[in-house]
This record gives sequence, C-alpha cells and structure tokens, in this order.
Amino acid sequence: MESMTKWVYFFGGGKADGAADQKNLLGGKGANLAEMNRLGLPVPAGFTLSTDVCTYYYAHQRHYPEGLTDQVNEALRQVESMMGGRFGDPVNPLLLSVRSGARKSMPGMMETVLNVGLCSTTIPGLIAKTGNPRFVYDAYRRLIMMYSDVVMEKAAGVEPEEGKGIRLQLDHMLETMKKARGCVSDADLTAEDLQELVGRFKVKVKEVLGRDFPDDPVEQMWGGIGAVFASWNGKRAIAYRKIEGIPHEWGTAVNVQSMVFGNMGENSATGVAFSRDPSNGEKRFYGEYLINAQGEDVVAGIRTPQQVTIEGRKRGHSDLPSLEETMPPLYGQLVEIYHRLEAHYRDMQDIEFTIQEGRLWMLQCRVGKRTAPAAIKIAVDMVNEGMITKEEAINRVDPAALDQLLHPMLDPKAPKTIIAKGLAASPGAASGRVMLTADEAERAAEKGEAVILVREETSPEDIHGMHAAKGIVTVRGGMTSHAAVVARGMGRPCVSGCGDLQPLHIDFANKRFEVNGQVVNQGDWITIDGGKGHVMLGKVPTLDPELSGDFGQFMEWADSLRRMKVRANADTPQDAQVARRFGAEGIGLCRTEHMFFDGERIVAMREMILAHDVVGRRKALAKILPMQRGDFEGLFREMKGLPVTIRLLDPPLHEFIPHDEKGQAEMARTMEVSLEEVKRRVDSLKEFNPMLGHRGCRLGITYPEIYEMQVQAIMEAACGLVKREQFSIAPEIMIPLVGHVTELKYLTERCIAVCNRVMEETGVTLDYLIGTMIELPRAALAAAQIAQEAQFFSFGTNDLTQTTLGISRDDAGSFLTEYVGKGLIKQDPFVSIDQGGVGKLVKMAVADGQSARPGLKLGVCGEHGGDPASIHFFEEVGLHYVSCSPYRVPIARLAAAQAALARK
Amino acid sequence: MESMTKWVYFFGGGKADGAADQKNLLGGKGANLAEMNRLGLPVPAGFTLSTDVCTYYYAHQRHYPEGLTDQVNEALRQVESMMGGRFGDPVNPLLLSVRSGARKSMPGMMETVLNVGLCSTTIPGLIAKTGNPRFVYDAYRRLIMMYSDVVMEKAAGVEPEEGKGIRLQLDHMLETMKKARGCVSDADLTAEDLQELVGRFKVKVKEVLGRDFPDDPVEQMWGGIGAVFASWNGKRAIAYRKIEGIPHEWGTAVNVQSMVFGNMGENSATGVAFSRDPSNGEKRFYGEYLINAQGEDVVAGIRTPQQVTIEGRKRGHSDLPSLEETMPPLYGQLVEIYHRLEAHYRDMQDIEFTIQEGRLWMLQCRVGKRTAPAAIKIAVDMVNEGMITKEEAINRVDPAALDQLLHPMLDPKAPKTIIAKGLAASPGAASGRVMLTADEAERAAEKGEAVILVREETSPEDIHGMHAAKGIVTVRGGMTSHAAVVARGMGRPCVSGCGDLQPLHIDFANKRFEVNGQVVNQGDWITIDGGKGHVMLGKVPTLDPELSGDFGQFMEWADSLRRMKVRANADTPQDAQVARRFGAEGIGLCRTEHMFFDGERIVAMREMILAHDVVGRRKALAKILPMQRGDFEGLFREMKGLPVTIRLLDPPLHEFIPHDEKGQAEMARTMEVSLEEVKRRVDSLKEFNPMLGHRGCRLGITYPEIYEMQVQAIMEAACGLVKREQFSIAPEIMIPLVGHVTELKYLTERCIAVCNRVMEETGVTLDYLIGTMIELPRAALAAAQIAQEAQFFSFGTNDLTQTTLGISRDDAGSFLTEYVGKGLIKQDPFVSIDQGGVGKLVKMAVADGQSARPGLKLGVCGEHGGDPASIHFFEEVGLHYVSCSPYRVPIARLAAAQAALARK
Repeated sequence: MESMTKWVYFFGGGKADGAADQKNLLGGKGANLAEMNRLGLPVPAGFTLSTDVCTYYYAHQRHYPEGLTDQVNEALRQVESMMGGRFGDPVNPLLLSVRSGARKSMPGMMETVLNVGLCSTTIPGLIAKTGNPRFVYDAYRRLIMMYSDVVMEKAAGVEPEEGKGIRLQLDHMLETMKKARGCVSDADLTAEDLQELVGRFKVKVKEVLGRDFPDDPVEQMWGGIGAVFASWNGKRAIAYRKIEGIPHEWGTAVNVQSMVFGNMGENSATGVAFSRDPSNGEKRFYGEYLINAQGEDVVAGIRTPQQVTIEGRKRGHSDLPSLEETMPPLYGQLVEIYHRLEAHYRDMQDIEFTIQEGRLWMLQCRVGKRTAPAAIKIAVDMVNEGMITKEEAINRVDPAALDQLLHPMLDPKAPKTIIAKGLAASPGAASGRVMLTADEAERAAEKGEAVILVREETSPEDIHGMHAAKGIVTVRGGMTSHAAVVARGMGRPCVSGCGDLQPLHIDFANKRFEVNGQVVNQGDWITIDGGKGHVMLGKVPTLDPELSGDFGQFMEWADSLRRMKVRANADTPQDAQVARRFGAEGIGLCRTEHMFFDGERIVAMREMILAHDVVGRRKALAKILPMQRGDFEGLFREMKGLPVTIRLLDPPLHEFIPHDEKGQAEMARTMEVSLEEVKRRVDSLKEFNPMLGHRGCRLGITYPEIYEMQVQAIMEAACGLVKREQFSIAPEIMIPLVGHVTELKYLTERCIAVCNRVMEETGVTLDYLIGTMIELPRAALAAAQIAQEAQFFSFGTNDLTQTTLGISRDDAGSFLTEYVGKGLIKQDPFVSIDQGGVGKLVKMAVADGQSARPGLKLGVCGEHGGDPASIHFFEEVGLHYVSCSPYRVPIARLAAAQAALARK
Repeated sequence: MESMTKWVYFFGGGKADGAADQKNLLGGKGANLAEMNRLGLPVPAGFTLSTDVCTYYYAHQRHYPEGLTDQVNEALRQVESMMGGRFGDPVNPLLLSVRSGARKSMPGMMETVLNVGLCSTTIPGLIAKTGNPRFVYDAYRRLIMMYSDVVMEKAAGVEPEEGKGIRLQLDHMLETMKKARGCVSDADLTAEDLQELVGRFKVKVKEVLGRDFPDDPVEQMWGGIGAVFASWNGKRAIAYRKIEGIPHEWGTAVNVQSMVFGNMGENSATGVAFSRDPSNGEKRFYGEYLINAQGEDVVAGIRTPQQVTIEGRKRGHSDLPSLEETMPPLYGQLVEIYHRLEAHYRDMQDIEFTIQEGRLWMLQCRVGKRTAPAAIKIAVDMVNEGMITKEEAINRVDPAALDQLLHPMLDPKAPKTIIAKGLAASPGAASGRVMLTADEAERAAEKGEAVILVREETSPEDIHGMHAAKGIVTVRGGMTSHAAVVARGMGRPCVSGCGDLQPLHIDFANKRFEVNGQVVNQGDWITIDGGKGHVMLGKVPTLDPELSGDFGQFMEWADSLRRMKVRANADTPQDAQVARRFGAEGIGLCRTEHMFFDGERIVAMREMILAHDVVGRRKALAKILPMQRGDFEGLFREMKGLPVTIRLLDPPLHEFIPHDEKGQAEMARTMEVSLEEVKRRVDSLKEFNPMLGHRGCRLGITYPEIYEMQVQAIMEAACGLVKREQFSIAPEIMIPLVGHVTELKYLTERCIAVCNRVMEETGVTLDYLIGTMIELPRAALAAAQIAQEAQFFSFGTNDLTQTTLGISRDDAGSFLTEYVGKGLIKQDPFVSIDQGGVGKLVKMAVADGQSARPGLKLGVCGEHGGDPASIHFFEEVGLHYVSCSPYRVPIARLAAAQAALARK
C-alpha cells in the first residue's frame, strides 16, 4: 500500500530519519544533513522528500503519491516544535528554504527558493519578533524575485519572450529604484523603499504572469517543492546530465529546511570552508565568510569575502579581520566541527555555515572538490595520519586528473590573446614560431628555434616535423586524428580541428595563416594550450610540472596494488626515456614506420617502392638495414632489458611517396627516373580506403623482403648488444593486421628463419617472441587458430574499433559529436572502449586464445590502453598489460591499481 | 602390422577386389574398372595400387610400404593367369599400361606409360605371336618415347635446358627419319625403319640421360608406378589442384592393366562414346572411333575420327562408315554395355573402348561431363524415365553452370579479334559503340545506339551511363569493384581490370583508348565477352539464350524442394521485371541511391547538399519526393504484391557531387553559387575512408529529413496503389549501416511517425516492416539488442566482409590474388562467404536476434546471396531468404534446393 511508503525524512535536533549512506534516496545534501544531525551538530531542522517522490512524480503525470501531504505536515510539525516557531504563524513565524539535492551534485542546475512562508500575516509578526523591518522586507523582496521566476514562470512552463522574463523585469525595477534613490548597493535601500518595492513587485507579477503572488505559506511551500521537481527535467539539467553521464531516472530529492539568517546584523555571518586547502592539499583550515550577509552574497562576489583563519588572512595579505578574530568562540566551535566531520567522513570536507545572531548553524557538508596535486597530497597525508588505508587513498584520485601534473602549464596570471579554438587534442602548453611545413619546422628546430607546426592535417610524412616542433596545430581532424594520436604519443601539445570550430585557413603561397581576419605569418610566435584547445598570439609564459615526493609515494602504492603491467607506446630512444621516467615497464608498441622516413632512408624506401623486382627491393632495403639496427640498439639500450614489442611495417606504401606534383617531381629528380614513372607508381598505389587496404602483414606477404630486413635489424641489434655488453634483451616481434592464421604462419616461418640465421651468425641465443596484433574483427573471431602461431596477442583497439564499428576515425568528426550530443552513444569509442561491440570481441579473443595456448601473453596497445574506464575493462578481461603513450603511463598505473582493487 | 594392410586391388575376368564406391581408395578410374568387372563386362585384367600407397610414399621419403612388392607380384600372377600370357615371357609376353587415377579426375595432369614389358627378350616373342613386327617396333618406339620422358627424365628430377628435353629430341629424330624416308605419317614408316629408329633412340637416351634404357620388364613396371606417384606432386598437378580446390593429401592411385591394342589391323579399333549427347543432352548414343589406332591417336586428332552410330554419321554429314556399319556385332555388344552401365550408374556415361582383333574391351567408364543445357535435359529425362528421383536430378546440376543459359553468347563460329583481356566480371556478350563517359553513353543510347561504356573505373555517378550501355569495360577494379558489382546486378556484361592484365589507356583528350598499340576511337564498334574477359574489335554476332521447357520443369522441381525463398536485388521496374522472369519471389534489396541521380533529381540533390539549414534541405528534397514516389509505384506494380525491401539512402553525400573541377564549375553555374562555395563543400565532404565514413544511417541521423522524404515517398506510393488499385503491398523499409540499437531506435521512431501520418492522410492501413541491414561487425555482436527494434535483419555481407576482414574490396586486387595464389585463403571472400570469420558473425547474429525476437525475418542481400557455396551456409544457418542480382536468381533457386536436400 502506498500509504505505507515513507516519502519524507525528518532531521533536526540531533535526530534524523536518514543517514549518510542513503544518498540514493535522500540525495547528497539530504543524506549529509541527516548525518550531521546524527553527529549532534547544530543543523536547522527540516525534512527531505526522497528521490522516490521524484520518480513517482514523473511516472504519474506529475502527481504526488498519496500520503505525501500527511507526511510533509507531520514532518513540518516536528520542525516547528524543534525550532520553536510555527510556519505561517502571525506571532512567531517559521520560514523555510526549499532546495534540490540529487545523488550527484549538479551545481546550479536546479532551483532553490528561500524565505518561504513570508506573507501578509507573517510579515508583521516577523517584524515584531526581529525588530528589523528592513531585514523582513528585504527577505520578502528576495522571496518574490525567486518565487515568481522559479515557481510561477519556469515551473509553470511560461515561455516569456527574449528579455521579458519576470526575473529580468523585477531586477530592472530594483535597479530603477536604486537609481531613483541614489543608492549604490541594495543595502542602501531603506525598509520603506523595500516595502514600496514589494508592493510594485506584486503588481508587476500579476500583470506579467496573470496571477497574484501567493499569500498562503503552504501554497508557497508546495510551489517551491514542485518547482524543484520540475527543474530536474529542465533543459539545463538534462544537458548537464548528458555531459556528466548521470542517468535521467535517478531523480532529485527536495530538502525543506528552517531558514537561518546570516544577515541579521553584525553578530550574524555566513561562510564556506574546507578542512584542507583544496588547491594544494595542505593540511590547514581554509575558508571565507561575510558578516551580515546571506549565502548568495558570498557566491555572487558582490562583497570581498574575509578569511576564516588568521593564517589565511596573513597569507592573503588581507586587511579584513578573520572569523578567528571577530568571533573567536564561534570559530572554535567551527574548528571542532570540521575536525569531527573530517574524522567522521575520513575525507576533506567542504562545509557551509551560517551564524545567526551569535549562533552557529551548519547548512551543508560534503566531500570537497580539489585539484590533482591536492588530491594526491591529501590522500598521502591521510594515509600517513592513519585516517585511511593505501587502498582508499588510491581510489580517491581520479586518474584522468593526473594529466594536470605531467605537462607544462600556462602561467594562469599571464595575459592571453586567444585567436582560435579547436579540439583539446593533446594536453600541455607550448610556445614557438609558426612553421607551415614539416621540413621548415625541422630546419628551424635544428637552428635552435622553438617551433609550432601548423598544418591542414598531418600524415606520417610530417613525423619529423612533429618531432621537431614543440606543439602542433591542425585545421582538420578530430580527437583521434593522426595529429592528435601522434602528438599524444610524443607528449606534444596539440590543438586539432581548428577549421571546424573557428575557421582557420592556411595560405601556403604567402606562408601565413588567417583566422577570423587575424593574419599570422610564418615565423611569428604563437602559444597553444592543448589541454583547452586554445591558440594564442605571442609567447605566453609557461610553468613546468613538478612531480613531488607525494606523487612518487602515491604512485608507489598504486604500483604495489595493481596486477596489470603498464608499458608505453614509444618509437624512439627519446620517447622511451620519457616513458621510463613515468614508470613504464616496457614498450608495448614501437611503430617502425618513422624509421623509414628520416633523411636518406626515405630515399632508399622510395627506391624500393619504385624497384621492378625483388632484387631491386632488397638492394634498397639493404641501405636502410644498418640505420634501423641502430634505432633498435638505441631503444634496447634505453629500456635496459625490459620487454620491447616492435611492430613490423604497417602503413601502406603510398604514405611514403609525396602526393603533390612538386614533391613527386623532386622525387623523380632524386631517384633519377621520369616524373611519369613516379606518377604511374603513385597511381598504382592509390587506394579508395587506405585503412582497409594494402598494409600491415599484407605488405609483409607481398614483399617479404621488407619484414625480413626489419627482423634482421632487430635481431642483429639485440644479439650485438648481448654479445658486446652482456645485455639481457627479450624482443617481441609483432606482425600487424593479421586476419587469417595462414598469414601469420607464412610470415612467422620467414621471421624465424631470419632469427635463426642471425643467431647462428652472431653465436648468440636469444629468447624472442613472435606475436600479432588483434586489430581486425576476423582476428578476434579466429583467435583460437591464430593463437596456435602467436606467442602473444596485442589488441590494437584503435583499428579494431574502426573496423568493428565501421567508423574511420579520421572521418568520424562529422557525425560522432552529434551522436554523443543526441545520446546515441555515451562516449567517443576511440576514447573509451566500446564494451558492447569491440569489448565483446576482445573477450572472445582472450578466452579462445588462452584456451588454445595456455600462457598466451595478452596486452593492449591502442589508445584505450591509457583510458581509465577501458583499463577497468582490460583488468576484468584479464589482460597482462596495457600500453599507452608515455605521458599517460602514470594515469594507466593508477587506473590499473583502481581496477585491481575494484575486482577484489 | 603393415604387412597385413591391403595395398593392391586386383580386377579381371568378372571379379574385383574393389568396387565403384571405393573411389577414395582406388581413384575414380580404378573403382570403375573394378565395378565394370563386377558387372561382368570385358575389361583387360589388372590391379590398382591404392591412394594409401601414395600417402605412405610421401610420408616416408618416397619409399613404398613393406609388403607392396609381394602384393603386386601376387596380383600380376592373377592377371597373367586371367589374360593367358606372362609378363616378361619370351614366348607369350604380356604387356602392361601404368596409369594414374585420382579421386577426382585431373585430366592430363599426371603421367601414363603404355606398352610396359617390351624388351630384348619379349620383342621377338611378340613378333612371333602377332606376326606383325611393325606393330611391335612401333609399340617399342612409343614405350621408349614415353618412358624416357616420364620416368627417366621427369620423375628422376632431371631438369633439361629449354628445348633439350628427351621427348623433344626423340620427336625430332622421328621427324628426321620421316623426312629422310619421304613419309607423311608415322604409319608410313616400315618395321625396319622403326627397328633402326629404336636403336638410335636408345643411344640418344644413354647420351642425354646418362643411363641405359631399362631392358628389364619389372624395372620398367616399377619405374612407371614411381613416375605416376611422382607426378602427383608435379608442378602442373599442384597448380591444377589449387585451382580446383583438390586437397594435396588425397594422393593418386596407380592402375596397372594388361595392354590391349586397337592398332593390330583392320579388325582392331579404339573409341570413346557417351550414352547421351553431352552437348545438348539428347537421348542418343554418341561417339567416335578409329580403326587400327591407339587411344592416343583419337585424342591427338591426327586422323579424322568416325562416328559410332549411323545416325551420328548422317547428322555429321560424314562419308566415313560408322562402327554400327563396319562391325555390327561389336556395335551391338557396345550398345548393350552402355545401356547396362547407364542403368547401373544411373547417369550419363563416358566410356572408352578398344577392339583388338575383333574382340571388344572396355578401358574406362565414368560419369560424363556435359554442358549446362545437356545437364538439365538429361536430369529431366532421367526423372521422366523413372531412372532417378527429382532430388537426384536437382543434385546433378552445378548451379554455377546455369549462368551459361541466361546470357546472350557470342556465336562460337564467328571470327574474333581480341584486343584486350581483363577480368570476367559479369557474364554475357554485347556489342556497341565505344563511349568514354556516362553522359555520352546516355546520349548515344537515347539516340538508339548500342553502347559499350569504357571507363577508368566507375562510381555511382556513372550509373545512368551503365544503365544506358549494353556492356561495360573498366581499366581498373577487380571482380568485386563497383563496375563489376553493379554490372552483375544489372545483368550487363562487364570486363573489368583491363589495365592490370593488358595495359589499356584512356586518352580523354582525344576521345579514344589505346591497348597494345591498337587505337580505338569513341564511336567505334567493339564487342565484349564478360564471361571470358575479352574485348574484341568490331561487331561479333551473338546468340540469344533459350530457356527451354526442360529448364522450366527442372526449376519447378528445385522450387518444390527448397526451404529458403529467393529474392532479387533490383533498383528499377526494369530490373524487377527481369528478376520476376527469372523467378524472384520478391525484392531483397532496392538501392535507392540512383533515384537521386537522374536528370533534375541530381540538381535538387545538390541543392540539398549545399543548403545551409534544414529548411533549405527540406525544400530541395520536396522536389525529389514526387519522382521517388513514382519510382516506388513502378517497383510495387512490377512486383505485384511480393515483398519489396527498400534500403534508405546509403552512400556518402560526396558521391553526389562532381569530383573534377570542370564538373564543379558546371554545378556552380547550375546552382547559381560560386565555384568557391562548391569547392568548400566538396572539401568538407572529403573522406579518407569513405567506406567507413559518413554514410548509411549516419546520414539519416544527421539529416533526418532525407529518410523522412524517402519513407514518405514509399508510403505514399504504397498507400496510393492500395487505395486506387486494391493492390496488396508489404513494403519493408531497411535502414543501412546500423551499429548501435540507439541509431535504429532513433530512426525507427521517425519513420513510424511518417508512416502513420501518410496512412492517416490516405486513410489506408498497411502492414509494413522496418528492419536493418547487418553489415557491421558491431551490429552482429549487438544483434540481441538490435532485434528489439528491427522487424527483420538483412545481412549485407559485402560490407560485413569488408569490415570483418578489414579489406576494401576496391583495393583488394593488389594482394587478394596473391593470397589465393599462395594458398593463404581458399577463395575470394567477396565471392564465397568467409565462414571462419564473417560466417561466425552471421551465425551469432541469427541466434541472438531470434532469441530476442522470435519470428525475426532473416535474409541476405550481399553478393553472396547468389553464390552456391554461401547459399549452403545460409541454409545451415537458417536464413529465410537470399537475395541476389536478377541474373543469378535461377542459380540461387537451384543452390537453395541443393542446400535444403543436403541438410536433410
């Protein structure tokens, strides 16, 4: 029976129906109000209408459940008896606030009504009781402004014309009166002014909204409650929930609470405080307050707030006295309370308080938001204080937030001229001179210039320029475009897709680009913030990150708790060095394609591509061999015996040939062949869908000599180091884009032959592995067979996502954003693994692969290897390691630890 | 124990160790020789070394199993006693033939040695016995020529220089002697000549091969046996097996049989015959023979063969007497034998016989090869004769062979000048004037010209030209290129990829193409044979196909036996008409994209693409609406109430915009916008991988107005017909490229709204279905969810193959052929479904879809819907229908019947 259901939860005077663990039912605010009561803290009495009421309300055409009214009345009676006043009473009136409170905080997204209960009968009583008519009329003014807006207009579904909303009109009347009276601030208006104003307000409300402002306290209360429930499905709230991934079914609770006033004179005040410093985590009480003010005044920033502590005042060089100085006993009480709350909740607290005529009331407490450095310091300190366990500490820090710690940041105080906005493709900030081609970028960098490379889009041909640059800007391409992926891999800041968001045109003829009429010439200084997607004029000073001792301690704990290894995707000794510094335990993906680009190599590579037969190709490849051997030596040396997975050549050959006529002509000249011949070859290599084309192991099969050369270089490098320097090395040779076990078998046999030959020639025996990427749906489906030939699987979830979903990541920009916006998918599947599709294939492949080959090594080397949500999935599936870009290694280490804890 | 294993199977004198059902063990030839003995037919005695010997031989470094020699000797003794002669006997010598005989016939791929047993001791005896020294020396000459080539050179692994093979040298000596003696044919050489020649032969053999020609009959026999086994792994045989898909493990049997001679005089003869006419299936005994000749003479075509029957002689207007006339009793015996064999094997027989000195010997019988028309006539006749069941009849015809019956053919007797060879992309022959652009092709066709469209490659922009043309030639693209797929769909002959096989260059400036120096101008006549991949100069006369009464009867039986329905992929009323004529039971895929191309539509479509907002787009679409409504009306009318599945717009928008500057300029002029604007839009639509791009339902989601217009056109057409003409119509609306159920849900809701609106407006209630294509791996993986929203699944196995395997079919040419060649994959996965990958997904989707929605309708509309092997798979999986191009409908009907029978 519905009448049996408990819809309303009372709190007050040290008692509460609810508690902190009932956030789902009471919302965060309601649960904590209840809990503070249970702790015996001074909280204005009130009651919470549960989220179930909201659910019921929306399931029943906005009707309330039976019995709700009775339960509210009953709770209200309890509140009255606790607070010693009566709602609507002409002599001793009680005022109420009506506020929302969802499971998860949605700041500013839902409605609040204060001062509920003021009406023609209670106003004189309250004036008599407080002896302060100005305070009372001011409170009434606020009630009318809020209520007419929130309840009478918004919740009632009135849609005013632009600029004709009731709130705006009343604001305007207030301003007009202030002007007429020559007042600067609201506080300058007298009781009489305000009395006159509320009279006019009521006329205006009737005129605009066609209804009288309600004079019945009970009607006001229910109006407020209804407005809060209605605001759950307001446009702003829905949009916010979509972004934050909060389910629409959750609903909100409504908290009805006795009003207390910080604006009843010099012995009243209101403030917010944190039990530790939220910006750096220091263990010090930190807060701000205002004397004779209401909460909204603190938030609105009309008056300069004062520090709560003396120490805070001194640090801030403030002349305004601290609460510690103005109201020492109340300050003492507040300190005691925050200590109790922090000890009770075992986490840093964000509290709101009001002092009404010398009496302290707690209005809210919750776990405080904090910066990444603060999160780490607080977690480490609390473990050291014995307050929490290491496991709890690990779970308290959002891995994604670590990113803030690892990249240079723009000096927040420096002035900035933002000229373009694009996608925040790779975090960090960098300044440099604009260069419009990779070659020019490289040349400038060689001269010691800091360079920002600005391109239409990037391709593997630009890698040397991207390496040379401090940061990258592209006109086209999304979060997972070539530029974005490579930049994240290199740890270079990158702003991509500037053409979509803020049209940016490159004018190659005049070596400049133009954005919104602003012309920037090659060689001009610009600064980019890849964490925000901003491009700025000139040189904005940056601050270097500091990996503090707390960070090291924290990551050590994370490492001790995780099961999965974390490797890095690194192509060069430089990348490997960064990776090692960030704690990588090996290289999970070394892409070898750039080893064909630099300097003479590209000449030899093009010679190979133009060769008419295998003899010609071998001759060309022989020139590249010693250089690649050197590359691998450098990598092995840097990784000091840790495993290194090397992917054999993957991209299609056309990526190694210039696509423009000029480049082709130059190539023809260098190669000493006719332009015709170059063009013919270019034409024959052209592909409709390069992603699904002649690449990966397909190249290895049609031109076995390429992989043979690479394997020879790998093994000669490894065997040489073992022989000369007693290194221990375990190279893992990875064959890309396998779909059929026959492909892998064909290539594995050839690779083994080369390995054996090199080992025989050098007299060194080496434990090496040969494995494959699982990056095609067919590979996942045929995992049982492929595992017969593969010693390891590395899930290439980038390409696996592209093929499974049939989405080219380079082209997805035109619809993926809209998909997320329309709620068709929750997240960009290139950012967080699509568990319902790609994840299913990964699961199948893991199970089939392991049952075919017990002990099969399993890892992931796609972008998802650095995404916390995906890492949780990989932990569940049982992979042995994840591999990600060097700058994401700490994030992956932490996420892997959290995933391991979650699994227990 | 090995010695217990039976390796050798004797046959002769009405007895045999083996029987017809032991083809796997004895090979086809050996099994049938055994069977003929069991039937009491006159067969020269002999024995078969089983395929197990071959397997053993290759598994044991080419050694024979223990006990084989004893078993051969034992069998040889039985042969001797049966034939009344002795192998190697100086007085009454027996000669042997040694022939291969695999499970499946591999004509000409393996070796044969005849006349084994002739040597210095047996030659005089045989001369004495036959009184015919010329015959004996001629036989010896043949033995030396065959044996030295096959055994002493090939099987021994001798690799002679080009032109220095022993066979060539001996041939040359034979010719030299003939010249010296002034002889025209071998038969003119005397016994003495031949005796001299064999003497020289032996010297030559010793000189070239370094060994004496063996003079020991037993050595000769084992040499022959070894050569046959060795030839199983000869290059030719391996290549043949790859093409025919015969497993290398099967091995061959060896048949050692007593020689009989058709060249022992005028009372000897040899011949081949068929129990029914293999070219048209007529029930008449048909064969050819030669008097005084050996079997190889018939095959070699040196002498004009004579007809076996009088009727045959008359039909062939031959002056040479028939066997029926020259040897009436033996003819009578042969007729009796063929009747017995046909009745016994219950199929048309291909027999070989030899008459030695008035005695008839049967050397071989097997099921006869036949043309497609013959196969159908024989099957139908045999059912009518009560010889076989309908089921057997259905299983006797290769569905792929039906293709021969459905397209016009080139007159085989007409002279042809082949100027280029490409891929046989779409069968049939056509002649027409060369046109190099779709527009010109259309214009010429409008004037009543027959046109062959010759293009670099085709795209959806060329569709009108392809429709207008009688046939299509492309320079680039494989068997599954756009041109090939569309041409097959339209039933147009097509030769694709002419540039790869025989470089063909189009010279657009001079409106001509050039191939191997031959220039063909626009407007010149050419003829193409899409079944062979030939392009010919001029007009080659063609013959129209005739769908005979037998064909109709046969297909009726097939229809009665199959479970799956067969629909056609048809886009226009014309296509639909062809489809209906070929027995389609509905349309499984109507691609709507071409409905946006013709005439004014493309103008409106481009207007939509250039529009800045939804209002502009709707305005443009409104112009297309009535035309599409007309298209659908035509289609519904043609299909007379059969189900019609209509796929909403699928290709990316850039396919509707010209890609060349000239076309863009023209478009800008027509649209009255600047070229700049057109170019900007073209740029913004450019995609790296269009296959994985902004197409299918992704378009429908970003531009809902497109699908809304299409659904409106469909429903208005359907409701209008129902209202005006009392039609019964069940349109099936198909949403392409769905990966997430959310996409389908989003679009389904919108489609239903439009349907309801149209039904309300017209007052007609219609049963319509909304379903989806399953063409992405993710769709298959999420089938359980998708089935919640979809009323049917149609597997789009073309795209599903592309994505699952990660292979762009337009780009696969550069490696897929090599994959097949290297044995990495058995078949082009775009021709026959990849059961290990794509098939797994189909299976999963069927199971998950059906359990989520019992009664879910399941079909396939990819190219695989017309491939017999794939159809077997779809039957196993339990699809409800297959859909294929109209010209493949009969093939699919037959294959579906065979699949249903196989399942039972």
